[in-house]
Amino acid sequence: MAETNRNVSNNVIRRLPRYLRKLDELHASGLKRVSSADLGSMLGLTPSQIRQDLNSFGGFGQQGYGYNIADLRRELADILGMNHHYKAILVGVGNMGLALIHNFSFEECGFTLECGFDINPEIIGKTINNIPIYADVDMAEYLSNNEIDVAVLCVPRRIADVKVQELKTYGVRAIWNYTNVDIDNRDKDLIIENMNFPDSLLALEYYITERRRREEGEH
Amino acid sequence: MAETNRNVSNNVIRRLPRYLRKLDELHASGLKRVSSADLGSMLGLTPSQIRQDLNSFGGFGQQGYGYNIADLRRELADILGMNHHYKAILVGVGNMGLALIHNFSFEECGFTLECGFDINPEIIGKTINNIPIYADVDMAEYLSNNEIDVAVLCVPRRIADVKVQELKTYGVRAIWNYTNVDIDNRDKDLIIENMNFPDSLLALEYYITERRRREEGEH
Repeated sequence: MAETNRNVSNNVIRRLPRYLRKLDELHASGLKRVSSADLGSMLGLTPSQIRQDLNSFGGFGQQGYGYNIADLRRELADILGMNHHYKAILVGVGNMGLALIHNFSFEECGFTLECGFDINPEIIGKTINNIPIYADVDMAEYLSNNEIDVAVLCVPRRIADVKVQELKTYGVRAIWNYTNVDIDNRDKDLIIENMNFPDSLLALEYYITERRRREEGEH
Repeated sequence: MAETNRNVSNNVIRRLPRYLRKLDELHASGLKRVSSADLGSMLGLTPSQIRQDLNSFGGFGQQGYGYNIADLRRELADILGMNHHYKAILVGVGNMGLALIHNFSFEECGFTLECGFDINPEIIGKTINNIPIYADVDMAEYLSNNEIDVAVLCVPRRIADVKVQELKTYGVRAIWNYTNVDIDNRDKDLIIENMNFPDSLLALEYYITERRRREEGEH
């Protein structure tokens, strides 16, 4: 879906937020350093996997000392780009969009949610949880005047592709996709991150089914 | 997070829903069979990866013929357990819970959403999009009388762990976790599938940052 210069595998990248979260916790608890063995056991990973993952980015630990928690935390935040203050807009302020506006902290991830766009006259012009909601027809103009890094796509699935084309036209090159559809993406420079609810529930279903098969096999 | 008898890797399991979705599409378009090369190019995977993935479950293709779409689709649905009609309940009917009730089709994944539980008196006793909402205090009794396969956890993060313990006590052994916190899970038999919003946004942030570094490097 996305390429990187460093040739770091997607699996490693997916683990970085978990490292960061755990380091935040340890940092908050006042701990100064942590060994790859301890970090691994807390995260359900082997020490060598931890070392391998972190070595993909240059290696931060010291033999016999482990990792300095504050340093590693800062390095990971830097690798992720949390200090860039990327700007996001919400495209579609229905139930899902509202759930994000009310419950999700973009700031904690290093983003600012600038505003939302919708066609619903009942919310256009209002401010919801400090986020102004504008008319969908004004989005193109807004994007011409503002550099936006990410569009959070929460529109109905039938218009997902149309909206993506529109966003691309106006220079948005990363999409956090909540539409549950695979976006047609022939533009290699467009980054799409899917929050695919059915995929997640189907994976859970597989694990439930496997456990059931295992338990039936045991009897 | 979850073990399987077949020793199929998590990565393969995560791809199964995507296969299924693509096969659904092909089936709907009237196609009868598909080669691993064509399926691969549609999904951005190599033919050998496709063959390897599907071989983990026994192998369904025929040399020179490819895959029979209807058969493969049925097999994958069976592997996932879509025909088991698992029962789900919604725990916490705030913005996120409402977004799921209104926008997400549990049925399409082979689940039935039976009801929701909340503490909000304004919705207790009501029916939202055909889903009855009951009082949180009645959940224990409900679970004693009804076999529920999955709890969809949409409560505030501060009570996530308490709710998980409660659900476990009453026999729920799989949780679709929308609380954005890592659930303390020492019970190996409890299956937890995380829809972790920050992890997804942080991964997207990494890809945006990498692209920026690449583009700056090019100049």
